[in-house]
Amino acid sequence: MAVIKKKKGNFLEDFRVGHVFHHKVGKTLTAGLFNAFTEFDMTTNPLSKNKRYAERYGFRDLVAPPGLVMNIVFSQSVEDISENARANLEYINMRFGAPLYIGDTIEVASTVLGVKPSGREPDRGVVHVQTSGRNQDGEVVLTYERKVQVWKGNADATVTEATIDRVPEVACTPQLPVYDASRRYAELARLTSPDTYYEDLNPGDTIEHSRGRVVTTEHVALTAMLDNTSQVHCNQFMVDQNPDKYIGGQLIVFGGIPFNLCLGLSCPDVADNAVTDLVYTTGRHTAPIFAGDTVFASTELRAKRDWPERPDLGIVATTLRGHKFVRKGDAWEKVEIFYLEREIAVKRRSHYA
Amino acid sequence: MAVIKKKKGNFLEDFRVGHVFHHKVGKTLTAGLFNAFTEFDMTTNPLSKNKRYAERYGFRDLVAPPGLVMNIVFSQSVEDISENARANLEYINMRFGAPLYIGDTIEVASTVLGVKPSGREPDRGVVHVQTSGRNQDGEVVLTYERKVQVWKGNADATVTEATIDRVPEVACTPQLPVYDASRRYAELARLTSPDTYYEDLNPGDTIEHSRGRVVTTEHVALTAMLDNTSQVHCNQFMVDQNPDKYIGGQLIVFGGIPFNLCLGLSCPDVADNAVTDLVYTTGRHTAPIFAGDTVFASTELRAKRDWPERPDLGIVATTLRGHKFVRKGDAWEKVEIFYLEREIAVKRRSHYA
Amino acid sequence: MAVIKKKKGNFLEDFRVGHVFHHKVGKTLTAGLFNAFTEFDMTTNPLSKNKRYAERYGFRDLVAPPGLVMNIVFSQSVEDISENARANLEYINMRFGAPLYIGDTIEVASTVLGVKPSGREPDRGVVHVQTSGRNQDGEVVLTYERKVQVWKGNADATVTEATIDRVPEVACTPQLPVYDASRRYAELARLTSPDTYYEDLNPGDTIEHSRGRVVTTEHVALTAMLDNTSQVHCNQFMVDQNPDKYIGGQLIVFGGIPFNLCLGLSCPDVADNAVTDLVYTTGRHTAPIFAGDTVFASTELRAKRDWPERPDLGIVATTLRGHKFVRKGDAWEKVEIFYLEREIAVKRRSHYA
Repeated sequence: MAVIKKKKGNFLEDFRVGHVFHHKVGKTLTAGLFNAFTEFDMTTNPLSKNKRYAERYGFRDLVAPPGLVMNIVFSQSVEDISENARANLEYINMRFGAPLYIGDTIEVASTVLGVKPSGREPDRGVVHVQTSGRNQDGEVVLTYERKVQVWKGNADATVTEATIDRVPEVACTPQLPVYDASRRYAELARLTSPDTYYEDLNPGDTIEHSRGRVVTTEHVALTAMLDNTSQVHCNQFMVDQNPDKYIGGQLIVFGGIPFNLCLGLSCPDVADNAVTDLVYTTGRHTAPIFAGDTVFASTELRAKRDWPERPDLGIVATTLRGHKFVRKGDAWEKVEIFYLEREIAVKRRSHYA
Repeated sequence: MAVIKKKKGNFLEDFRVGHVFHHKVGKTLTAGLFNAFTEFDMTTNPLSKNKRYAERYGFRDLVAPPGLVMNIVFSQSVEDISENARANLEYINMRFGAPLYIGDTIEVASTVLGVKPSGREPDRGVVHVQTSGRNQDGEVVLTYERKVQVWKGNADATVTEATIDRVPEVACTPQLPVYDASRRYAELARLTSPDTYYEDLNPGDTIEHSRGRVVTTEHVALTAMLDNTSQVHCNQFMVDQNPDKYIGGQLIVFGGIPFNLCLGLSCPDVADNAVTDLVYTTGRHTAPIFAGDTVFASTELRAKRDWPERPDLGIVATTLRGHKFVRKGDAWEKVEIFYLEREIAVKRRSHYA
Repeated sequence: MAVIKKKKGNFLEDFRVGHVFHHKVGKTLTAGLFNAFTEFDMTTNPLSKNKRYAERYGFRDLVAPPGLVMNIVFSQSVEDISENARANLEYINMRFGAPLYIGDTIEVASTVLGVKPSGREPDRGVVHVQTSGRNQDGEVVLTYERKVQVWKGNADATVTEATIDRVPEVACTPQLPVYDASRRYAELARLTSPDTYYEDLNPGDTIEHSRGRVVTTEHVALTAMLDNTSQVHCNQFMVDQNPDKYIGGQLIVFGGIPFNLCLGLSCPDVADNAVTDLVYTTGRHTAPIFAGDTVFASTELRAKRDWPERPDLGIVATTLRGHKFVRKGDAWEKVEIFYLEREIAVKRRSHYA
């Protein structure tokens, strides 16, 4: 006869370098979840919207956009890694592999790469993990490292500080259909922008994407749909009891939502002629988002280069930034909310239009 | 090295009579989008809800209700035609063709029929277009004209006023399964109302549909799901910066949403025994809707007539009106929000029950 | 020439003991509805989330969780039984049969078991019904009784008080795949909790589930998706006109939503290793929920017993309670909102891990 309240998630002292978490549950991408996310964010790449187009390009079906891939894999790791986190510090070397389709089932595992208590603040520290998601055929769809600041559960607990000797190598390369001129891609070229091919993107330019999108309380349902169990996104009573403890004194929008939204807002200007995102070398959330905020984005084109194996494509290195405006007296202050170094594989007009 | 903000959509001076826009992206109807719209509006026609019933009637699968067909085709045209519009003035001769199913891909084109600058107000004018949506087999699912009031982008630009000589003919007729008594329709007659057959609908009567439905901030997500890029529906910051410029000083609900909702609210009284909507001869939004408004609808039965090719069906001409109530001091004022002249093909009890 | 407002639903005087309502419309479970409900509630049973896992267990596809089964069947009965209800009093003997899959079509019928006018209040009384939902193959997926307090439509109408002689027997037993050791279930044991097997659940313990979930205005859309036509959940104008008449003076959240949510919140602690819910012997909503309330749940483990036909499973009798917190001055009062006596069939570690 007992009243039991089970511990959820891990605290700083629970992490051991080298340990591998096989995250529970797993997730089949239903057409419902695909719709909720793909269409939520104003993505305009026909590979994610137009089945006829995706099949013409040699994909099996509509392709999940990168923000949805990231959201699914990341959320599966939340309970074990960051249910008791204070802040997500950095995404590192996030790479895309097999395309993700409706009906695919994703299961996720994470390896602990490092544990480091804070020098100044005894109640927290940083956990460094590598997380990979695989589909039902064992193919990696996404792999990345992240650093997250995690609370200690017991102030007196001993934390085993360590760093892994060598980050495990995870084979993860984009699986793209081969280029095949007999597919007559140009017949469908009118479905994308005429000025977003590799030839059009000029390093040095910064594109301010014109559209904005308010985030409503829909964020609570979207986060639940992802199986993200972090309470700061959905437990209003917890926040109301102790608003000073929580940033802004209200429910914070899960970072995966502005991440997805910034990718979508940038799409018509830089990514509707991309065939895949390749890698996010580094990324971070630089300010929180709350219901009622309108999210905007810009893309800095940093560099571009040939892709030797794929003469039909080129690689464009960009920086994607998100921002919102916060009222200060009678004025509005522009606040950066998101920073992502992003490489994408973009079609060449010479081959596709 | 430049900061670039691309123009989105067209302004009055950009339109040329006779020009054909092939709208970008295209849209595959996922089961997620089907659910979000079909079930959102309280449609009660089993053709859109009950697969067993739809198949018994000879349809391949659940049939998209007319409000969803309209919303998908219309939204594909927004970026090119009305992203810079001030108001949508009129829908004209909106006709339904092939049924739309989950998994179908719709691509849309519009022809400019007329351009007319305003005589009184130099910053705007009216664009008249014909828009048609086709499925992956090239069949027309919907075609219609609309008139839209569009801003000029540059006050000094020259507008080429013109009207097309002849409105292009677009073949678009409902594709209905043949009547086949061996299907024993009456076995499923209990799934629809017993008093909404052709024989029951009496010209001259007006039916006040009893149910109402509040529109919440869900409208932002629903509009995004449709790929409608108009900023007045989702860019809260844009409105907050300049509330006097925008009607009501808040985000306006996209007209396709009350359009869909009025069709749904009317369904149990006049359309749950309809097999298709045929034509909307004219339609317009007569007042804006905001989050928090409750939408109601009524149907005036104007006339009915035989359909010579289909003795099992009859044609009913109706006027569908939407309304809401606005508080004025201590009272509520009834405000018409939507007007649609609508013809539907309705089953005869003699053949189906 | 008439203005017609059709009656919706039935009043107390309309019910006759023994009458069978074959409810209209029917409902195909789309992937969109499956997503909206299954993921909304933080269910963590992989049978409803991970197709690879569900198939390994011998199910045909992802399995609808019990809260979704209940919501679909119940909502189909609302128009005929409770559109004019004042309150839902009790669920009785709710039993689960065939698994419900995406693409299945459910049709529902109800038999009137009893009609009893209130002794004290002449404007209302209690209707007792038995409701069963069947899939397209005629298999029962859910059957239950409920008692509901219904308004009279006409204060002077005669109510025919009666009770049925014998409650009809409805064959409804869980249809579970057979246990087959060659399936190597243990390979996937890492996808569920290690401590929620039959062996782990100790009668006498009460588990306070740690997570909470705020209900937002999303409830209006969720209720519409279920085809629940009760106006107290979505007709804001009706409530605003006469707030004193409606509990809390605002839209009430449909009871099926906290019902579903409490099941989901309890899942990681007691039901992620359950293969089916068996029976809810009694259940009731003990306080209303409004948008903004955060829902919590606890489970009391009352008893457990062998299941002779299934040595791989055991039966656990629980009481699931929901609660919320209401501010009283500076304090918060804990209010029970839901009570459900629930039996579930749980895997034995000896057979599955």
